Amino acid sequence: MKKAIRPPETSWPQLLGRPVLSLAEIMPQVQQVFTDIREQGDRAVKSYTEKFDGVALNAFKIPEDKIRSAEEKLDTPLIRAIRVAKQHIETFHIAQQTSPVRVETMDGVVCWQEKKPIEKVGLYIPGGSAPLFSSVLMLAVPAKLAGCKEVVLCSPPGSDGEIHPAILFAAGLCGVDSVYAIGGIQAIAAMTFGTETVPAVYKIFGPGNQYVTAAKQLAIQFGVGIDMPAGPSELMVIADDSANPRFVAADLLSQAEHGPDSQVVLVCTSESILTEVESEIDLQIGQLDRKSIAEKALGNSLGIVVDELKTAVAIANEYAAEHLILNVSKAETVVRDINNAGSVFLGNYTPESAGDYASGTNHTLPTNGYARQYSGVNLDSFLKSITYQQLSPEGLLNLGETIAVMAEHESLMAHKRAVTIRMDAINKESDENG
Amino acid sequence: MKKAIRPPETSWPQLLGRPVLSLAEIMPQVQQVFTDIREQGDRAVKSYTEKFDGVALNAFKIPEDKIRSAEEKLDTPLIRAIRVAKQHIETFHIAQQTSPVRVETMDGVVCWQEKKPIEKVGLYIPGGSAPLFSSVLMLAVPAKLAGCKEVVLCSPPGSDGEIHPAILFAAGLCGVDSVYAIGGIQAIAAMTFGTETVPAVYKIFGPGNQYVTAAKQLAIQFGVGIDMPAGPSELMVIADDSANPRFVAADLLSQAEHGPDSQVVLVCTSESILTEVESEIDLQIGQLDRKSIAEKALGNSLGIVVDELKTAVAIANEYAAEHLILNVSKAETVVRDINNAGSVFLGNYTPESAGDYASGTNHTLPTNGYARQYSGVNLDSFLKSITYQQLSPEGLLNLGETIAVMAEHESLMAHKRAVTIRMDAINKESDENG
Repeated sequence: MKKAIRPPETSWPQLLGRPVLSLAEIMPQVQQVFTDIREQGDRAVKSYTEKFDGVALNAFKIPEDKIRSAEEKLDTPLIRAIRVAKQHIETFHIAQQTSPVRVETMDGVVCWQEKKPIEKVGLYIPGGSAPLFSSVLMLAVPAKLAGCKEVVLCSPPGSDGEIHPAILFAAGLCGVDSVYAIGGIQAIAAMTFGTETVPAVYKIFGPGNQYVTAAKQLAIQFGVGIDMPAGPSELMVIADDSANPRFVAADLLSQAEHGPDSQVVLVCTSESILTEVESEIDLQIGQLDRKSIAEKALGNSLGIVVDELKTAVAIANEYAAEHLILNVSKAETVVRDINNAGSVFLGNYTPESAGDYASGTNHTLPTNGYARQYSGVNLDSFLKSITYQQLSPEGLLNLGETIAVMAEHESLMAHKRAVTIRMDAINKESDENG
Repeated sequence: MKKAIRPPETSWPQLLGRPVLSLAEIMPQVQQVFTDIREQGDRAVKSYTEKFDGVALNAFKIPEDKIRSAEEKLDTPLIRAIRVAKQHIETFHIAQQTSPVRVETMDGVVCWQEKKPIEKVGLYIPGGSAPLFSSVLMLAVPAKLAGCKEVVLCSPPGSDGEIHPAILFAAGLCGVDSVYAIGGIQAIAAMTFGTETVPAVYKIFGPGNQYVTAAKQLAIQFGVGIDMPAGPSELMVIADDSANPRFVAADLLSQAEHGPDSQVVLVCTSESILTEVESEIDLQIGQLDRKSIAEKALGNSLGIVVDELKTAVAIANEYAAEHLILNVSKAETVVRDINNAGSVFLGNYTPESAGDYASGTNHTLPTNGYARQYSGVNLDSFLKSITYQQLSPEGLLNLGETIAVMAEHESLMAHKRAVTIRMDAINKESDENG
C-alpha cells in the first residue's frame, strides 16, 4: 500500500488518478467480430464460440425446461439466499417508481412527462471462475419492474457448453425471456445486430472484461445504448477512530480480491488507524483463496492520512468512488457532504458485500470517476422519459405571439408560420361565428 | 416526397431507415484539435478560433458587464418572449423534481437513493446564421434548477468576435456562471480538458454540427459525459381525416427548414390527405426564406398511407421520431400506444414550434431512432442518483447469512469474511454482555 501523509490538495488529482484505460489495441479484433456477426449471424457466433470459449455448440438458446429445472441442481441455502436478495432488490427498485408529471404552464397549454419502458434490453453476465448470479438479479429485477417487453440474457458457456445453474435459476426466477450461451464480444455483437436466434436489443447492460467493455462501446456506434462505461472495480473507505481496524481491513480485502486491477483507497484521520489496518490486512490476507490477486491489487492501493474529516470528504468527492464506506462516527451527518459516489455504506456494520448482494441497492455502479456524472443502474435505467404537450385553440392564441417572436429572431420563418397559420384560422373562425 | 402506399410491415425498417452517420472521416481532425488544446490550452484555442472562425481573440471570457447590458440591444417583444418561455420551461422542469427514496428492506437494513447535481456542466450553443438563444433556455434552466454548481457556456464568436446579445441575455437571465466565445471542436475540447480560462466540466450538453457531434463522442473517451448522441432533426406527423392539411403542411415545412438533412415523415390514413397536404406544401413553400433548404429536405422525405390508425402507431413506434405530431381525432387515446418518441404533440393546435420554444417541454431530444432508449434532456439529465445503505448490528445479523452464502457461491471469500468477521464480533459481544 502506497502512503500519502497529509497530501496537499494540489497533489490530489495525480494521487487519485486511475490508470488510463486504452481499448484502442483490442478494437480491431472487436470490430472484426462485429462485422462477421452482422454479416453471417449465428454461423459467426458459432465459430467465435469455438475459438474463444473452446466449445462447439449447435444451439445457443437455453431450452425453457433447462431453466425451470436449474433449481434442482442448487443447494437449499443458496436458493433461499437468492430469493431473499431478489426480494430486497425488488423492494428497493419498486420504491423508485415515479408518477407521470403534468402541468398547465399557461392557460390552454398542458405539458406532461411520462416514463415508458425500453422495449428490448440485453443483459450480459460474464463467465469465468465463478457464476455471477448476483448480477442477474441486479439487472433482471429492475428490467422486469420497468416493464421491458423483451429481456434477453447472454452468458458464456463453460467448457461443458453449459451455463451454470445458479445463473439459469436466477434468470428464471426474475422472468428473463430468453437465455443464450454466448459470451464476450460475440454476445454483445449478437444483441446489437440480432441473429437468426438472438433478438436485437435497444440497450445492453452488464459487467465484463476489457473485450466486453470495448464491444459495448462499439455497440453505441450502431445505435444501441449501454448502461455506462466500465473500468476496474473500486472502493474508498474513510475511517476515523471509531472504526474497527479488523472490519476496515476485511472490507479493503473484499475489494482487492475482485481482480489485480481493483482500486483500493483508505483515508484515515490518523496515522495510527492506517498502521492498525495494515497489520490487520497482513493477518487476514493469509486466509484468502484469492490471496495472490488481493496482493497485486493492494500493491496499487493507497493509504491517505488527513488531519480533519472534512478533508477526507473533499478527497472522496474528488475521487468519486464506485463504493464509498463511511466508517466514521456520525456517518449520517458526514454523508450529507458526499456529492460524488456510486453507492455509500454507512457505519461499522455496513460492509460493501451487503450492497454487492442483498441489501437491495444495485451493485452495477459507475467506476473510473464516472460517479461525478453517472448514476448506477436503477429503475430509470430501463425507462426513458417522453414529453407531451397539447394546446387548445385558446392555448395557441395565448402562446402564439411568444413562439412567433422567438422563431422570427432565430430566422426560422416556417416555425413562425406553423403558429400564425393556426392563429389566423382560429381568429377567422371566431370572427365568422361572432 | 417519396411515397409508400400501404407498405407491408417487413418493408418498414428499410423504408424508415436513416442515413448512416459516419464520423470516421472527420475524427482525425477532431483528435488533432483535442491533442493541441490538451497540451497548449488557451494558445491552441486562440489559434483554432482564428483558423475556423476567422477572428483573432485575445480573451474568450465574456465580461459580466457585457452579459448584463445585452438586454439593451434587444427589442422589447423578444425580451418579453424569452422571459415567458423561460418561465414555462422552469415550471415544467420544477415539476420533474423527485424526493429521495428510503426503504427498510429488512429489519435493520435501510437503503435510500438521493439525486445530487452534477457539479460542473458545459453547455454548447451553436453559432451560424441565427442565434439559438432558445437552446440556452432549454439547457441552462434545468442545469440551474438541478443545482449544478458551475454552469459554463461556449458559443462561437461571429465575424465581429462577439456572441449575439440574445444568447448573452438568455445566459444572464438563467444564471449561467461564465460564457466563452469559443465554437466547434475547440469549445468541446476546452470544456473536456479545461484551459487557463475555461473550466473542465463533467458533462457536456447541446446541439451542433457533425464536428461538434464527433467532438462530443471523443470527449466521452476522456471521461466526460454527454447529453446524447446526435443526428439530423426529425418530425413524423400522423394525420387522419380530422387534420387540417394547411396545418400539417406548415408543420412539415417547419421541420424541413432546419437543414437539407432534416427527416420528415407523414403517415396518413387515406391517400386524399396525402394529396391535399402535398398541394398545401407546394402553396406554402414559395413563401419561405429558406425555401431551397426545405426543398432539399423534402426531397428525402416520405409520405406513407395506411389503412388503419393502428398501423400508423406501429410505424411511429418503429421509427421512434424525435418529434411526433398526432394530428388525429382522439389524440389523447391514440397517444397511450406510443412507446417510442422524443416529444409528442397532440391535436390540431399543437405545432412542433410550441415545444421548440415555449410550451415548457425541452427541445433537446433524441434523434436517429435513439428515442427507443434515450430520454430527451430533462431535470434528471443534470443529476445523478447515489444509493446508500446502513445496517444496524441487528440488520447485519439478519442479512449476514444471505450475503455469506451468495459470496461463497461466487467464490468471493473475502466478501463473505467482511460479513462473518462482523457477525462473530457482534455475537461475541452479545455473549460477553449476556
